[in-house]
Amino acid sequence: MAVDGVPAGFSRLASKGEFLRRCGEFYLHDELPIMGVRIGPEHLNALQIVHGGLLATLADSACGAMIWRQSGGQLWPVTVNLNVDYLSAVRAGEWLEAHVEVHKTGGRFNNASCLLQVGTRVVLRGNGIFTRWKEPA
Amino acid sequence: MAVDGVPAGFSRLASKGEFLRRCGEFYLHDELPIMGVRIGPEHLNALQIVHGGLLATLADSACGAMIWRQSGGQLWPVTVNLNVDYLSAVRAGEWLEAHVEVHKTGGRFNNASCLLQVGTRVVLRGNGIFTRWKEPA
Amino acid sequence: MAVDGVPAGFSRLASKGEFLRRCGEFYLHDELPIMGVRIGPEHLNALQIVHGGLLATLADSACGAMIWRQSGGQLWPVTVNLNVDYLSAVRAGEWLEAHVEVHKTGGRFNNASCLLQVGTRVVLRGNGIFTRWKEPA
Amino acid sequence: MAVDGVPAGFSRLASKGEFLRRCGEFYLHDELPIMGVRIGPEHLNALQIVHGGLLATLADSACGAMIWRQSGGQLWPVTVNLNVDYLSAVRAGEWLEAHVEVHKTGGRFNNASCLLQVGTRVVLRGNGIFTRWKEPA
Repeated sequence: MAVDGVPAGFSRLASKGEFLRRCGEFYLHDELPIMGVRIGPEHLNALQIVHGGLLATLADSACGAMIWRQSGGQLWPVTVNLNVDYLSAVRAGEWLEAHVEVHKTGGRFNNASCLLQVGTRVVLRGNGIFTRWKEPA
Repeated sequence: MAVDGVPAGFSRLASKGEFLRRCGEFYLHDELPIMGVRIGPEHLNALQIVHGGLLATLADSACGAMIWRQSGGQLWPVTVNLNVDYLSAVRAGEWLEAHVEVHKTGGRFNNASCLLQVGTRVVLRGNGIFTRWKEPA
Repeated sequence: MAVDGVPAGFSRLASKGEFLRRCGEFYLHDELPIMGVRIGPEHLNALQIVHGGLLATLADSACGAMIWRQSGGQLWPVTVNLNVDYLSAVRAGEWLEAHVEVHKTGGRFNNASCLLQVGTRVVLRGNGIFTRWKEPA
Repeated sequence: MAVDGVPAGFSRLASKGEFLRRCGEFYLHDELPIMGVRIGPEHLNALQIVHGGLLATLADSACGAMIWRQSGGQLWPVTVNLNVDYLSAVRAGEWLEAHVEVHKTGGRFNNASCLLQVGTRVVLRGNGIFTRWKEPA
């Protein structure tokens, strides 16, 4: 069933920790490697544009989620490096999507990159390196 | 007056937007280029370690705050690039500090880097490029 | 006319400085945003794989060349940030291509990213931020 | 014995591959984590400033060399990620030093960062992630 303000084909991201819960509601596309969020007042900084930390969080989470999904839920990714370029400000009310491309998985490290877009406007270019979670001894 | 659980010399960061407010209470050292936060359950991911997005947010905010402070409050920095390496997991209850070094200010670009530490343990190495905020025409 | 060992559609990069000349012969695709190089012994490190510095140089040069070309030769880009992830080793004899995507031009900074590939094998994921060259006062 | 144009305390880097040999003569400080190079015409781009690729090569090589040295020659580092911010142009005749700080070694990943300086002028801020070389099967 469609969520109000969320395009068709997206489902609410259910399993997540407390920090992401504070960051608002995130949505995964059911088939495409896209994570989306409807920007609200809770995402803004003092300039009334989306805080860079929220955008970095989305880039990190979207890349990790797609590596996890592509592994069939077998690989729980932990971020080793995150790099983001900010290209355009994002404002309240906009529907923001992270389009992910996974470049490499299965070795000691896994690589993905993403473009965050509002419609066709690119607002962030990001990439990450991820390793497999191992509980410290 | 000392805040419970916060070392002497730190004052609560007052002026901030809604997103940072959701991320918890941040503290600026009164003299040194250090921003600190006491880690609570609200910062954790599903693995019960601090979410990479919160660490990226702290790195971004700490670098920006120190560029702003060093300019005497004249330069409001907007992030152009943020790059973070994750070196060690952070857990609830730990006091986390971002130690910032500003490399360059005053030109088209301003550069800073930081080490996030719990005591002497380095948990993140980060750096950012910032430009001056200009309201879009 | 075809150069020996260089695929059709590529022309030798002529205008360049002394450092790039030392790095070997680079080729630009006449229509697509691709720069290529035939790997020789002069590109290798002590492990007999291509030195990371040569790959970074190709990523930087390819992104800059495509920003320059897309501006009709009006914008001479100077690198502000370069970020590269190494995904796979490259060996002598391989034909290496940098496939560039320009994300943004025309403002205070210009953004591009690239994938370096040998055939369909991705060996490097890179991105850069560039500003316009201005002779220092 | 002192090399002409090279400060006391530095020794020529001997063991290196063909690419680094083409990039000129590099010097390691005998005790401090510093690599140096005297800039010549062979390092310049068409704007007559040092090519970003040479600076990236120096950052990469200096970080790797210090991780190798700190391991007592046991760990041969392979670069996983390199990130460089360019802060100031470098010109022919200048003595350029890369001052390295190793943040972490011994795990799956090794982290270092560096500042490239001409005297006290910072010209590049860089960092890298390195893993241990393993011959592919």
